[in-house]
Amino acid sequence: MSVILAHSNYGKSCVRLVKVARYEDRHDLQDISVNVAFEGDFEAAHTVGDNSKVLPTDTMKNTVYALAKQVPEIEEIEDFALRLTEHFLKNNPQTSRVTIDIEENQWLRIAVGGTPHHHSFTKSGNEKRTARVNATRESTVVESGIEGLLVLKTTQSGFEGFLKDQYTTLKETNDRIFATAMKVTWLYSRPEAASGPLWRGVRQLILETFAEHDSLSVQQTLYAIGEVVLKKFEDIVEISLSLPNKHCLLVDLSPFGMENHNEIFVPTDEPHGLIEARLRKK
Amino acid sequence: MSVILAHSNYGKSCVRLVKVARYEDRHDLQDISVNVAFEGDFEAAHTVGDNSKVLPTDTMKNTVYALAKQVPEIEEIEDFALRLTEHFLKNNPQTSRVTIDIEENQWLRIAVGGTPHHHSFTKSGNEKRTARVNATRESTVVESGIEGLLVLKTTQSGFEGFLKDQYTTLKETNDRIFATAMKVTWLYSRPEAASGPLWRGVRQLILETFAEHDSLSVQQTLYAIGEVVLKKFEDIVEISLSLPNKHCLLVDLSPFGMENHNEIFVPTDEPHGLIEARLRKK
Amino acid sequence: MSVILAHSNYGKSCVRLVKVARYEDRHDLQDISVNVAFEGDFEAAHTVGDNSKVLPTDTMKNTVYALAKQVPEIEEIEDFALRLTEHFLKNNPQTSRVTIDIEENQWLRIAVGGTPHHHSFTKSGNEKRTARVNATRESTVVESGIEGLLVLKTTQSGFEGFLKDQYTTLKETNDRIFATAMKVTWLYSRPEAASGPLWRGVRQLILETFAEHDSLSVQQTLYAIGEVVLKKFEDIVEISLSLPNKHCLLVDLSPFGMENHNEIFVPTDEPHGLIEARLRKK
Amino acid sequence: MSVILAHSNYGKSCVRLVKVARYEDRHDLQDISVNVAFEGDFEAAHTVGDNSKVLPTDTMKNTVYALAKQVPEIEEIEDFALRLTEHFLKNNPQTSRVTIDIEENQWLRIAVGGTPHHHSFTKSGNEKRTARVNATRESTVVESGIEGLLVLKTTQSGFEGFLKDQYTTLKETNDRIFATAMKVTWLYSRPEAASGPLWRGVRQLILETFAEHDSLSVQQTLYAIGEVVLKKFEDIVEISLSLPNKHCLLVDLSPFGMENHNEIFVPTDEPHGLIEARLRKK
Repeated sequence: MSVILAHSNYGKSCVRLVKVARYEDRHDLQDISVNVAFEGDFEAAHTVGDNSKVLPTDTMKNTVYALAKQVPEIEEIEDFALRLTEHFLKNNPQTSRVTIDIEENQWLRIAVGGTPHHHSFTKSGNEKRTARVNATRESTVVESGIEGLLVLKTTQSGFEGFLKDQYTTLKETNDRIFATAMKVTWLYSRPEAASGPLWRGVRQLILETFAEHDSLSVQQTLYAIGEVVLKKFEDIVEISLSLPNKHCLLVDLSPFGMENHNEIFVPTDEPHGLIEARLRKK
Repeated sequence: MSVILAHSNYGKSCVRLVKVARYEDRHDLQDISVNVAFEGDFEAAHTVGDNSKVLPTDTMKNTVYALAKQVPEIEEIEDFALRLTEHFLKNNPQTSRVTIDIEENQWLRIAVGGTPHHHSFTKSGNEKRTARVNATRESTVVESGIEGLLVLKTTQSGFEGFLKDQYTTLKETNDRIFATAMKVTWLYSRPEAASGPLWRGVRQLILETFAEHDSLSVQQTLYAIGEVVLKKFEDIVEISLSLPNKHCLLVDLSPFGMENHNEIFVPTDEPHGLIEARLRKK
Repeated sequence: MSVILAHSNYGKSCVRLVKVARYEDRHDLQDISVNVAFEGDFEAAHTVGDNSKVLPTDTMKNTVYALAKQVPEIEEIEDFALRLTEHFLKNNPQTSRVTIDIEENQWLRIAVGGTPHHHSFTKSGNEKRTARVNATRESTVVESGIEGLLVLKTTQSGFEGFLKDQYTTLKETNDRIFATAMKVTWLYSRPEAASGPLWRGVRQLILETFAEHDSLSVQQTLYAIGEVVLKKFEDIVEISLSLPNKHCLLVDLSPFGMENHNEIFVPTDEPHGLIEARLRKK
Repeated sequence: MSVILAHSNYGKSCVRLVKVARYEDRHDLQDISVNVAFEGDFEAAHTVGDNSKVLPTDTMKNTVYALAKQVPEIEEIEDFALRLTEHFLKNNPQTSRVTIDIEENQWLRIAVGGTPHHHSFTKSGNEKRTARVNATRESTVVESGIEGLLVLKTTQSGFEGFLKDQYTTLKETNDRIFATAMKVTWLYSRPEAASGPLWRGVRQLILETFAEHDSLSVQQTLYAIGEVVLKKFEDIVEISLSLPNKHCLLVDLSPFGMENHNEIFVPTDEPHGLIEARLRKK
């Protein structure tokens, strides 16, 4: 019997970086975490411990800091990821593929007396802007996304007419809470299409569609969001959505002689539904 | 040798509750988590397994839901905590002290075309409004607070002139990042002073003071925040602040022939400074 | 422009279940968490809100409990996953693929006076046994695994002779700490090969190989583990390993006039290396 | 109005340290996290930003590493905490109180062919040994403890004869699962009594008492554990126990025509009971 190395990748994860661009009238702030992963000619490292083609993951980390420094302004995370893949592919002939993942935390300027402050910020939650660039010497795929977008609607959501079997006890309802923590990613027709304004446009369209949709199921709302994003944004060719259904259960108050008119709920984390789909332009 | 039960308490923790108030022009939403704790005459439960004075923690949970239902509107968390302590003390002569802790998640209405939506919300992070009511038959103490208020300033913060010993390697600096996740609680001169507007006023004052303060140390900024809150809010008599110093370390780029003019930092979680104080009016 | 539903799946996640088998001489305990995912003919649910082919995720949860009850003994998690995929595929013609993921927590009997107790257990950490069954009407793939296997060796690990570029500052070393939290999964030549004794055999072989290997790199140790498992276990045809390199950094004590002979380290979580590979039999 | 600094403390938290003692026949390993906190004459730092009495928290961290190095062997965490408090009090006349908290992770030697390995270890879960030394120039209090001791018994636990009111729906039971994650701390009659053998003795006695106790309530079992520890260990004068009741709920299988004879349970994290008490010798 012999053994084949069918696949391998290695790299550095969670390289955290805060970057400050210092202007006279304001400081800009960026707070990101970067993952670097290489694929390529690393068989000898695995089989005989030959490290001569292995760039240390510590060097990957240093490269993230050094390249961040080379652009004095804050740049889009997709652009930074592209610079990193280009650098690594160019300088490492032993690699066949480089993948960069970036998560960006969202900080807002503190308002002092109604005016955005020069250099002080507050973090608006765990929602993250994400980017992934997956590049070989032949092709480059740029993906943007949002993670941890928490939304809840108290009505205009139902679930009826579903399939029933011997283990079904769920009651049909035309009025329930719909709460989820969306993870959405999308691909572009051309790598240079990614931008902050586009990202904020997609985010706002997701929020508005969620708010306004008359939901017959999580699936239907997910699809409505994906469809409207594809239709409105010419440069987006594919979108993937992952929606955990964070159930809010109606509390049974009848033992206490009370009726619960959709007022009192228990939000639960476990178990949760998970609804996922990928839509693309024909 | 004999053994004494020097202290005991018991209760239910993490009773999660979403409450919806359904008006024609809008739905209001509240998302809280409640802890209930009893102290009192529970020695026999411990020593001989006599449960006759032990109200089940499951009943505490049911009571949270039933009492939430009895007020149709969304109420301040301090008021809900007060109703719970009153109910439990009145109906449970075996208790000498009841403590209610409430954490409230912050949801914002989604803006659709610039207009706040009727019934759809998004969650603005992990920041929480907190309340604690600690009540006996003789006295009631109401505490309000904020937890997880993440702030960062990129300058106007230094640390110089500190004590040095043989293990000191830290360099003095008059320009560093100051990042923290504040936990702040305060006490009132009268229980009924707590309110949403007051809470939002304290929060805004904390943010503005943090932003504007010319910080010589975390201690000094902490004190400045506590002092200004005590001075501005007549009904607040004591304030406690806990500020982890979430260090952002300057990356050494000199091995790559670069100078780092306070642009590139590594944010770290461990280890972290922890600065805490309690201030009160004389 | 028109939009295509390129892929979709839905199901229930984190269905937690504790099962007790009650014998006269002992109780057996199993503590698992189950994920169920369906793929199939669910296009109309997405596009027009037609739920008639949608089995509720709540029913999936009920099915997990009902099927767990039907076998009175504790069964291997792979067998339980197989029963679930068979049930769902048989009763749901609209599905084309059913995937079941199970995580099992490890509890050990408490020893009382040296004897394993009849019905009392303690949990040995966060390590989990995992199983995944991915089944269509044509084929069934059974995967077993271990997650969160934390190991550390204080020596017999080095990293030398690696590639250097202008951003490399890492020093070569022939003596470092090697710490990781392994995630390992493997596939079988035949679905029925999975068993508890085999799982424990793989786990022990991983531990012993990690302990004994003279490591020239994480990659080499990873490969050595994968290779020995494939060679020893005839029924295993493929193995995937994911090893975060949880760096323990040597503390620089020279400012205090001390030499650190590999005695004092700072363990760090961020950033971390990540080394992954898949090996298979030829 | 004037403002008083009623209390303050500051220090460094989560100083992680791995220490290796390298002997010919074996390496010993210790993995701890240390918190340092000072109280004292720090008013000027708060009120006027005078840092001349403020030892940097960075220096506290360095001191942990330097003092760890000074003892070549692995020492008990209580002894290390005592050395740290002594060092800080001696060298910092401005401090009135120093508190050191240490958490120790538990690593076990990997068995290779049945023999404990020379230098390779596996981590047995999230259970931690803890120590706290709280010292002034007048007195020193040493506390030892266990955190995250997860235990479960499948029977010999009931809850009956409890108080009922209008919100009580819980059914009485003489056979339920009892699962908890214990946090236990204890105080000594003399600081030097703390030791590894004593700690392991307390841990084993807690486990055995939990296993064997015929539990009428969590309170009663908690008390039984505290009492037996106080009675068996002469040097322990006080013990505090915190037991979350991690409810395992019986699944209602009756809608599926099945009876659930205490076989199928849902373990839940929220809400949970919380039972706490402190016992001491008379």
